[in-house]
Amino acid sequence: MTQATLDEKILSALRHDASSHISGEELCKIAGVSRAAIWKHIEGLREEGYSIEASPHLGYRLLNIPDRLIPSEIKWKLKTRLFGKEIISYKSVDSTNDIAYGLAEKGLKEGSVILAEEQERGKGRHGRSWISPPKSGIYLSAILRPQIAPSEISKVTLLAAVAAAKAIRDVTGLQAMIKWPNDILVNHKKVCGILIEMKAEQDTAVFVVIGIGVNVNTPVKQLPKGASSLREELKNGAREECISRIELARKLIERLEEDYFLLKKDGFKPIMDEWKHMTDMLGSRVKVVLQNRTFEGLAHNIDPDGALVVRRDAGTLEKILSGDIVMVR
Amino acid sequence: MTQATLDEKILSALRHDASSHISGEELCKIAGVSRAAIWKHIEGLREEGYSIEASPHLGYRLLNIPDRLIPSEIKWKLKTRLFGKEIISYKSVDSTNDIAYGLAEKGLKEGSVILAEEQERGKGRHGRSWISPPKSGIYLSAILRPQIAPSEISKVTLLAAVAAAKAIRDVTGLQAMIKWPNDILVNHKKVCGILIEMKAEQDTAVFVVIGIGVNVNTPVKQLPKGASSLREELKNGAREECISRIELARKLIERLEEDYFLLKKDGFKPIMDEWKHMTDMLGSRVKVVLQNRTFEGLAHNIDPDGALVVRRDAGTLEKILSGDIVMVR
Repeated sequence: MTQATLDEKILSALRHDASSHISGEELCKIAGVSRAAIWKHIEGLREEGYSIEASPHLGYRLLNIPDRLIPSEIKWKLKTRLFGKEIISYKSVDSTNDIAYGLAEKGLKEGSVILAEEQERGKGRHGRSWISPPKSGIYLSAILRPQIAPSEISKVTLLAAVAAAKAIRDVTGLQAMIKWPNDILVNHKKVCGILIEMKAEQDTAVFVVIGIGVNVNTPVKQLPKGASSLREELKNGAREECISRIELARKLIERLEEDYFLLKKDGFKPIMDEWKHMTDMLGSRVKVVLQNRTFEGLAHNIDPDGALVVRRDAGTLEKILSGDIVMVR
Repeated sequence: MTQATLDEKILSALRHDASSHISGEELCKIAGVSRAAIWKHIEGLREEGYSIEASPHLGYRLLNIPDRLIPSEIKWKLKTRLFGKEIISYKSVDSTNDIAYGLAEKGLKEGSVILAEEQERGKGRHGRSWISPPKSGIYLSAILRPQIAPSEISKVTLLAAVAAAKAIRDVTGLQAMIKWPNDILVNHKKVCGILIEMKAEQDTAVFVVIGIGVNVNTPVKQLPKGASSLREELKNGAREECISRIELARKLIERLEEDYFLLKKDGFKPIMDEWKHMTDMLGSRVKVVLQNRTFEGLAHNIDPDGALVVRRDAGTLEKILSGDIVMVR
């Protein structure tokens, strides 16, 4: 038995009924080790940040878990069939997407999730960086192996935005909104960014990595201009507590699976409909910034391929596959 | 000065006027080394397969170059501005596409070309293998960094087919034809296959690897059923000689650059028009084999996205993004 699984056995027993104590004797039975071994592991868990009460007569009781992206904590009560069955969590990485991409190339299976407490070279779209301060955000990458053509990647892009916005709404109650293609804003400030990376052959995706960065409890002074964190936006609504990153990570994984299965079962329309319900940009004036030109117009619609359709002032419609959108107010 | 560049200096001087001799003294001057060093390098080149005549009074003369995919031989007289400026050639690899993909991830620049004399795990579409016997074929992968959306990858796919078919026609005179999306056939037998692999973000390609495998002088008994080699098809036309792989590799690189620059300058239409002129499948009866179903119909057209449009017997048109086409005769 490895130490990890023994820790997990003990934690599982402690979690089982967090309102009452469990005796050392019982823990010994469950874990199949001596009382001295139990004690040693309880000490180890405390060092990891678990708060565990030890009462000479009553036994042990779990008071609090550390706010870290620990796989076993996220898996605990995770309601999925495929996603998050494999979770690999790092203290610090260059980029969770790079790790996930490399592991996907080596065959890591669909639904696997990579997490990190910190990214030293967090990536945004088009070679930009994603500022990823330690211990306060969620940096998550999930591996998908959808049977789609490369041109269908925008379906996954919009799916990821819908899943992330819903997870944020579920856990915080904040009115998370989507900006095309997949920024998540609260009160018009960016709290979450999504980077999709794909390996594809000419006519079929080989794998897709969905990278999601969420500013959860991140102090705003650590973030770029125009960005905010979920905690900061809750504060504005007069709530002060930290948001559980474990709960949000779990919900992100659940929502990703739910929407991915929905896409496979019912196609893209339900996802696109949800996307449209979670954006307030359609009908708004936007500036479209492309590689070689810039123009303004009205965000008109999302087409069945996931492209943004913009109505130019001259009345013509232009389909935007790739580019940056600035809201004009 | 490294040995490679000294060899290249000597070769370059020898190639300069292959009809006459160059004296040892002259070679010493050009290469900046002693006569003993020249002699040593001439011996080294002979071991590599170069046939070099040495006459006591006249000096050295290049009689023949080895039929190997030597970068300096391919670069010699290569008429390109970008493609093939960097050529890395291997004796044996698992897959030139894997090598190119890995180097592209590390930043190897656009137009770089990977070649191998043999692939031990040559790849075809959809996880299939590409039989790659040693010393008789061309296994070539080129790195592109086009500014396109992932959905535009089919433009590169058709471009690669056009470039490969033209290069084969140029060098052999054979009537190479394209079968959607990018098989190259001669006399209805497959002589060349293309595998495109791409790394992409949600809305933009990061890089594309064009992998081209050509059965050049490959004995048919080493090839799978239905496949042939260029030499075999020339034999049928009563010519017997080996085809120069160096010449064909050079022409492939030139045609790739030419069509890639054309795509960048004038868009997809000229490429698509050329593609249509090099296929005889439009109007023919085909069986379409998809992941989960199979049907027959008439190959109707290529749509502006590069998809194959098939007219089903019921009269409806179906757009095929991904799948296998079997010609029905």
